[in-house]
Amino acid sequence: MKEEIRKILKKSLTCWDKLSIRQQNLLIDNSSFVHYCKNEFIHNTDTQCMGIFFVKSGSMRIYINSSEGREITLYRLNNGSLCLLSATCVLKSITFDIYMDAITDCDVMKISPTVFSSVMNNNVYLEAFAYKEATERFSDIMWTLQQILFMSFDKRLALFLLNESKNTPAASINMTHEQIAKLLGSAREVVSRMLKYFSTEGLVKLSRGKITILNKTGLKKLL
Amino acid sequence: MKEEIRKILKKSLTCWDKLSIRQQNLLIDNSSFVHYCKNEFIHNTDTQCMGIFFVKSGSMRIYINSSEGREITLYRLNNGSLCLLSATCVLKSITFDIYMDAITDCDVMKISPTVFSSVMNNNVYLEAFAYKEATERFSDIMWTLQQILFMSFDKRLALFLLNESKNTPAASINMTHEQIAKLLGSAREVVSRMLKYFSTEGLVKLSRGKITILNKTGLKKLL
Repeated sequence: MKEEIRKILKKSLTCWDKLSIRQQNLLIDNSSFVHYCKNEFIHNTDTQCMGIFFVKSGSMRIYINSSEGREITLYRLNNGSLCLLSATCVLKSITFDIYMDAITDCDVMKISPTVFSSVMNNNVYLEAFAYKEATERFSDIMWTLQQILFMSFDKRLALFLLNESKNTPAASINMTHEQIAKLLGSAREVVSRMLKYFSTEGLVKLSRGKITILNKTGLKKLL
Repeated sequence: MKEEIRKILKKSLTCWDKLSIRQQNLLIDNSSFVHYCKNEFIHNTDTQCMGIFFVKSGSMRIYINSSEGREITLYRLNNGSLCLLSATCVLKSITFDIYMDAITDCDVMKISPTVFSSVMNNNVYLEAFAYKEATERFSDIMWTLQQILFMSFDKRLALFLLNESKNTPAASINMTHEQIAKLLGSAREVVSRMLKYFSTEGLVKLSRGKITILNKTGLKKLL
């Protein structure tokens, strides 16, 4: 098991070779495997710090919550993803609440947040790595929130997909992202990114030159 | 002038002592002072990379823009603030558009983004510093967006302030944040943070045990 943990750490922490042997062993000795069942809510009793997650198999999501219980998915973690944002005790600058649950059955490797934190405080390479990862995640999150916040393009695209699918028996639209972008007066990148978001939300399935609607009710809720 | 630049860099880049003399001099030689007039829009011809800003005096703001021209202020930069998020060519992970303008007349020190970037790539301490700064900003931004996104508390607080001020001649509310929190069934921290946001937006002025409404129309627009 130690060997498997070492392999995962070496692969996902790109600064692994800049850690001392002692630091590497500390991280290895304080990582472990956990299984989560589908729909399981992940939380931790010690002050909300969920720790650092590496998803071996399955799919998890990170979301924020309003006081009325409305949820917004910030991003998904699939096979091979590392998640640092959940470790609010490591990245102390993260001051908002983050929630997490398992979308499917998941096998996860957890790194102890206190040990990671202490290694990070003594190794500037790991510190740079952690904050760079966080900045990248935030950048993606900002894009998502910006789209939702201005409530224009997600609605427009949802409406478009619903209208187009009316005429097809299999609720699928045979169009490229480029074609849709032209029809909506938008850019291909914007269409692709929003479709990707719809797909991670389970609303549509994307395949080459084709979009299949999986959850019509979900798309209608966006309107 | 060089001496003043050195002083500012030393103070605002907390990792200054970890830079080599050559790296320090590179940053000093490639920083300069700029003056912006009130309401001036700040942009740069070379691919939107505005560079790194240190506000010596005055007040600037960073905002995002919807295609319909709706603006959301992400944060303000006041005297003594350093802004790295504007340097999208330095923090390459930032992929969304950021805009900036001067709220008042401003004296700003600008660090060349290309030079900063090259020093950062050769000095992990500066890299860690930059990404940590970005993570902290993002955390604040997330809080703001989350409040606006769920459109509940900002509205509720605005409505409360408008109603309370009706009965006072000077459009001021003599209450502590704690008292308001109790009346709104919220936490004092949430009230304080939102009031601080209102105040940076110029809607209210905060003083001990008292809130003065500066812009009634602005508050009404939130409803």
